[in-house]
Amino acid sequence: MSQGLFATLQTLLGAGHVQSSEEAAPYLTDRHGRYVGQVIAAVHPATTEEVAAVVRVCVANDTPIVVQGGNTGLMGGATPDASGRAVLVLLDRLNRVRCVDTDNDTLTVEAGCILHTVQAVARDAGRLFPLSLGAEGSCTIGGNLGTNAGGTAVLRYGNARELSLGLEVVTAQGDIWNGLRGLRKDNTGYDLRDLFIGSEGTLGIITAATLKLFPLPKAQATALLAFDSLAQAVKFLSHARAGFGASLTAFELLSADCLALLREQFPHGPQPFPGASQPWFALLELSDNHSEHHARETFEAVLGSAFELELLADALIAQSLPQSEALWQLRENMSEAQKRAGRNMKYDISVPISQIVAFVAHTDALLQTHFPGVRHFTFGHLGDGNLHYNVAHSLDSTVEAHMANYAALSLLVHDSAHAHGGSISAEHGVGQRKVGLLQRYKSPVELDLMRRIKHALDPNNLLNPGKVVEVPNP
Amino acid sequence: MSQGLFATLQTLLGAGHVQSSEEAAPYLTDRHGRYVGQVIAAVHPATTEEVAAVVRVCVANDTPIVVQGGNTGLMGGATPDASGRAVLVLLDRLNRVRCVDTDNDTLTVEAGCILHTVQAVARDAGRLFPLSLGAEGSCTIGGNLGTNAGGTAVLRYGNARELSLGLEVVTAQGDIWNGLRGLRKDNTGYDLRDLFIGSEGTLGIITAATLKLFPLPKAQATALLAFDSLAQAVKFLSHARAGFGASLTAFELLSADCLALLREQFPHGPQPFPGASQPWFALLELSDNHSEHHARETFEAVLGSAFELELLADALIAQSLPQSEALWQLRENMSEAQKRAGRNMKYDISVPISQIVAFVAHTDALLQTHFPGVRHFTFGHLGDGNLHYNVAHSLDSTVEAHMANYAALSLLVHDSAHAHGGSISAEHGVGQRKVGLLQRYKSPVELDLMRRIKHALDPNNLLNPGKVVEVPNP
Repeated sequence: MSQGLFATLQTLLGAGHVQSSEEAAPYLTDRHGRYVGQVIAAVHPATTEEVAAVVRVCVANDTPIVVQGGNTGLMGGATPDASGRAVLVLLDRLNRVRCVDTDNDTLTVEAGCILHTVQAVARDAGRLFPLSLGAEGSCTIGGNLGTNAGGTAVLRYGNARELSLGLEVVTAQGDIWNGLRGLRKDNTGYDLRDLFIGSEGTLGIITAATLKLFPLPKAQATALLAFDSLAQAVKFLSHARAGFGASLTAFELLSADCLALLREQFPHGPQPFPGASQPWFALLELSDNHSEHHARETFEAVLGSAFELELLADALIAQSLPQSEALWQLRENMSEAQKRAGRNMKYDISVPISQIVAFVAHTDALLQTHFPGVRHFTFGHLGDGNLHYNVAHSLDSTVEAHMANYAALSLLVHDSAHAHGGSISAEHGVGQRKVGLLQRYKSPVELDLMRRIKHALDPNNLLNPGKVVEVPNP
Repeated sequence: MSQGLFATLQTLLGAGHVQSSEEAAPYLTDRHGRYVGQVIAAVHPATTEEVAAVVRVCVANDTPIVVQGGNTGLMGGATPDASGRAVLVLLDRLNRVRCVDTDNDTLTVEAGCILHTVQAVARDAGRLFPLSLGAEGSCTIGGNLGTNAGGTAVLRYGNARELSLGLEVVTAQGDIWNGLRGLRKDNTGYDLRDLFIGSEGTLGIITAATLKLFPLPKAQATALLAFDSLAQAVKFLSHARAGFGASLTAFELLSADCLALLREQFPHGPQPFPGASQPWFALLELSDNHSEHHARETFEAVLGSAFELELLADALIAQSLPQSEALWQLRENMSEAQKRAGRNMKYDISVPISQIVAFVAHTDALLQTHFPGVRHFTFGHLGDGNLHYNVAHSLDSTVEAHMANYAALSLLVHDSAHAHGGSISAEHGVGQRKVGLLQRYKSPVELDLMRRIKHALDPNNLLNPGKVVEVPNP
């Protein structure tokens, strides 16, 4: 049967575009090497019609279908299971720019386009496509939409969902839904678009999208701010939102421990605020539609009034583009700094901004009680209430001993986020890594609604089974 | 049976909160008197638990449930059918403000809150809730969310969907889904929120919502602009988006014929540009986070460069709040001016902004060919690609003769919107009025997806049956 399916797929796509499990090995391990899968075949369709044909053949053979973009996901959502029953659909050949419409401020691209390419196409058209995240050089827009990616510009522009107007999707029946509408308003039925976005390939395969474009800012201003407390940083954020409005395009928190780690791991990198005693810092970015002069004036006015109101302890304002890039480098180096320092436990949580202070105080204290000496590396998108709340081993202990506590420590962190009205996955999604956790943190009513939708759109549970929502065997 | 149900509902809610069809007459006719329904009972539950109990009782009695907010909808979506089989659920008592969280910039309100009240609660907290539409004094936030309402601030802030973070919903099973999350980022499963928003009570009953708040602008500037052509207005819009960025909060188009109609019907109202020869006008609003001075400076800089680039024929800049209000009054009087001038045919269409010029030219010409002399009153939210494309009788004819052509004329307008990549209902929804049209303008794949979702969440087709999507009898 599976030999027959392999041959059928070869006939459909051409032999050169169908790989065996061995040939496809790089696609069968997730980024962190946590999950390793096997497949009947990995296929590289070049058109939406070919994707649909692959789905129809798989359905006819009762074969699961896993779709993968740039393989940069953190939850194993794009890695097939080890049963070797699935077909992996890779969209690298589905990478055309279909339409740039500057009058409508939209861009229509196929799912396999690399995010960086999409940004560049927009820039060449004199526009901004604001989605921006660490993996942008290799992640694809299809993966971004499948996981509703976040990143550093969500504060101003929203996540991937809010940046899209229309989709093209291959359904679990192998039909093509052309929902590529470039409309800001369309109230003619259920919001299918937002249902497919973030469903991680479990409800359909996104093959193309019409995305929103924005004016390119004329100038930007960047500063690293120092705060006497996290509460002060939260108050400053409110002040900055009022003063900058939509010009506030980033507010990225870094704890003093994060800055110290960066100094340690990147001794030749930027070294801001040497010897500072403040416990919290934030990278602030203003984007201005007028001019460099105007950006600077606005920036200084809002920072000035913040000093007067004691919402700020210190500020390092970038005086040039290289200085601004150096400040951003701090934020961007955080992942690598942690990697160099040894494995730690990473949590991608969000809480209402009004709960940030309580969440961090409560969770830090709880962890110190139960796991004395663990080190907190807390940073992230404070403006979205989204913290990368990471926990490293106590210096009295070892990475291995620390990682052995993973389940117990995770329970404390997730329970605390949940108790503070938060989410256990702010931007990384569910995949296979967190699917079991949803049983604990979602109400039975919500799980039932999710299962009803999954069953309605994919009754045979063939699209990325075992991800996002656990369903009983059909 | 229905007598038994009436008594059961009385026991559940108290006799004073259950009305007969006769007592509930005002709720059983839609705003335009197009639809008149009958019910077993109209009920006024005071809590979400009571709404859930009503649903469970109705389900047990195989009784359809229609939910209604302020009864201001234009598509008959909240009017029960004439069979008298349904129970009408009115949410006027479910009108508490549950939480104002200024640090999180969110507001949690129950569905029965009047939109104007929600705006006022936000303002009292020093924040802006930007949803704004003609019916705001009587429509409810539940109705706004159920229909994904638009209005004049969509250009900057998005429609009702984009203004909400979380929902509480009573499902078709009579369960309560508590999705009242005040989170900007939460990727833990399917986007149920956006599925319920805009579903017009056919998938569940929205009982409360957590809404986004924004900083109150410090200053606003308003102008009425005159354009030599619609193409010039579209080009100006692009220029204004680049120059104002997110400060551009309204761009409302009015044709010269609309201005003439306003002069005729409101002879004591504002009379801008007397004798002007330009065919198109637009109301422009800038909202500024800095100061009156800054708003004025920015406004004049962008308008000045537009004059230099010949993107603008003339501009009337409001010099005071009363002058600004007078300009807005023009836009707000459009509905009433048309009403006074006699019935016309109203179309709520959207197209990509890049297609606006072609759509209007093509459709105007087509109508003149088939219905010579009909008069076009085209206005609306140009910044969203959303036109209220209204057509009045030829002065050689009568309103009655004109309205007799409704089906044929509508077909031309809707076909043209569709052919230009547009929507036949940009912000007014589907209700019962446009449900049949979806067969023509939606693909079988999309209708199938909608029916699958409807069946999954409401398998007995008891929630607002006959609205949004036609389903086969179960």
